[in-house]
Amino acid sequence: MENLHINLGGRSYDLLIGGGAFNSALDWLSNRETRACAVADSRFLSLHSGAEKALLERGIPVVKVEGGEKSKTLSEFGRLCSEFARIGLDRCSVVAAVGGGVVGDLAGFAASAYMRGIDFIQIPTTLLAMVDSSVGGKTGVDIKEGKNLVGAFWQPKAVFADLSFLKTLPPREFAAGCAEIIKCAVLGDAGLFELLENLDGPLAPDTPALSEAVRLSCALKAKVVAADECETCKDGGRALLNLGHTYAHALEKCAGYGTYLHGEAVAIGLVFAARLSAELCGLSKNDERRICGLLEKNRLPTHCAEKISAEKLWGAMALDKKARGGRVRFALADKIGSSRTMFPDPELVRRLIDEF
Amino acid sequence: MENLHINLGGRSYDLLIGGGAFNSALDWLSNRETRACAVADSRFLSLHSGAEKALLERGIPVVKVEGGEKSKTLSEFGRLCSEFARIGLDRCSVVAAVGGGVVGDLAGFAASAYMRGIDFIQIPTTLLAMVDSSVGGKTGVDIKEGKNLVGAFWQPKAVFADLSFLKTLPPREFAAGCAEIIKCAVLGDAGLFELLENLDGPLAPDTPALSEAVRLSCALKAKVVAADECETCKDGGRALLNLGHTYAHALEKCAGYGTYLHGEAVAIGLVFAARLSAELCGLSKNDERRICGLLEKNRLPTHCAEKISAEKLWGAMALDKKARGGRVRFALADKIGSSRTMFPDPELVRRLIDEF
Repeated sequence: MENLHINLGGRSYDLLIGGGAFNSALDWLSNRETRACAVADSRFLSLHSGAEKALLERGIPVVKVEGGEKSKTLSEFGRLCSEFARIGLDRCSVVAAVGGGVVGDLAGFAASAYMRGIDFIQIPTTLLAMVDSSVGGKTGVDIKEGKNLVGAFWQPKAVFADLSFLKTLPPREFAAGCAEIIKCAVLGDAGLFELLENLDGPLAPDTPALSEAVRLSCALKAKVVAADECETCKDGGRALLNLGHTYAHALEKCAGYGTYLHGEAVAIGLVFAARLSAELCGLSKNDERRICGLLEKNRLPTHCAEKISAEKLWGAMALDKKARGGRVRFALADKIGSSRTMFPDPELVRRLIDEF
Repeated sequence: MENLHINLGGRSYDLLIGGGAFNSALDWLSNRETRACAVADSRFLSLHSGAEKALLERGIPVVKVEGGEKSKTLSEFGRLCSEFARIGLDRCSVVAAVGGGVVGDLAGFAASAYMRGIDFIQIPTTLLAMVDSSVGGKTGVDIKEGKNLVGAFWQPKAVFADLSFLKTLPPREFAAGCAEIIKCAVLGDAGLFELLENLDGPLAPDTPALSEAVRLSCALKAKVVAADECETCKDGGRALLNLGHTYAHALEKCAGYGTYLHGEAVAIGLVFAARLSAELCGLSKNDERRICGLLEKNRLPTHCAEKISAEKLWGAMALDKKARGGRVRFALADKIGSSRTMFPDPELVRRLIDEF
């Protein structure tokens, strides 16, 4: 197993990656000697009944949450807080989020707000959650006005990424996780990009390089987050992690949440970001092709199948949390492994959306 | 006008106390040059139409909230976040909470969570909000399992306490605010206690010493908060501010929220805390009498009119956020102006509740 230290001063924590990480999480929870509760994805539990049994055997009650964006609501947030109170969690208690990004975001936000904040740990069970939401401390829910519009920065006390759980992940969800790994590679790790390019086929649960790819992605994200924990940098900083996401969030909203998996929307968003990068900061035609190629090799979509008007997508982007006074910030790549943020001319963005 | 600096490192802010504080708030909002929005108590606005007009004239939209504990819900919290999105608030925007403690707690929690946290200022319009919720950074809402069980620590960027607003406050609400001033005096400022004792009658909106009493209360609270911002001290710390509150919260819950004003419940809680203090840490009979006397002089209740079983009250206390593993922490006074925290024997507490 590999251990990655996420350095955030008083909020630092360790990320354990490997096949036995779930057992380590159980030990960690038992060693704390304070009341604990698990918030777990119901589909994951149905596939891994041993996990639920192990939690219950250690006296850790399990609150079930349906996976999928539809659970990221204020009403589910409220239900979790009420469950915490009924279970009797106090300020010393800890919540373990067991599931994908939705469960992590939801349970993390509930932990951040219950009694004005109690500890939580992440036990991500999807590739996307392992490489994306388990580093960064972003938690939250959607409201009808937009995705992730309500939430908190709340760092976990530890993250346990058990790669053995990925064997039961549907291939489409596994691929969606790859999109975030590819994003990390494009924005700041050319070596990781080449590692993925040099694989014979797509990244898969049994690829020996998987743990290395997960570790490199998380390490890159951790480096960016450490420099800008609460997204206050005016240039660069955490906004770099948004590569492909400005378009992706707008697409998810306009196509209806659930039409695309988040990672699929990110894949399409990466192609759009590459297009914009080629126009605005000299990304070469060859790098643009390599990005598309690597996404396709990993069975990810590279264009939007729906007819959505440029005006509608642009309107959704302007409400993005990274927007500043009507201008929308994009993370763009100069070349594979190097990126920056810009506020491009809205007219240019609209034209490119239209052509896309 | 008096200025009190609340020293919290990077989260420090100024508290302005006096008759012209609202105009200073308007200037502060105008000078920021970012989008702003006011969340205001609808009853306050109906009494001070000039305040709403002044906000709108500066281009600051006003979202109305009904005062009273019934508005401190997750559903109102969600409504505010949606309003912020519709108004187009972004991460640089600021929310002004104009009203009593309920509006401050609700709008502050919404500001803490909207886009994972934007700035807010407090414009308290009740005495209770001026001396209690405007210092400390506690925000939150109630859920059916308990009061303030969901929220955040979120410091305002500034607080503007305009004492002229207190002239329209119902006398019962003014008295409720006095209860928190008396609490501050008992827990850490014997001079403030004497100042109040030496007044000819109860504290009133036209008492010349009012601004001094507000400033001393806020200063005491600020000193305690600065030493323990997020209530992590094991002994003393912010838990001292809970003097009278452990009983008060349980009483409010058991009698039904709204039966007592918060300050009235605190007054009764202070008498209970004095009783417990006399049993456990040597508070003199004379100090116990002085505390009751000062509360009565300020037209505050000193005992509970309802028949509520000791078992029910104790059960509610055990769910208090300050509880640790089944034992309930109380702030208690050795003498007027000096206090400490303890976890008393549950049997003793139950007996005293029963006798009370």
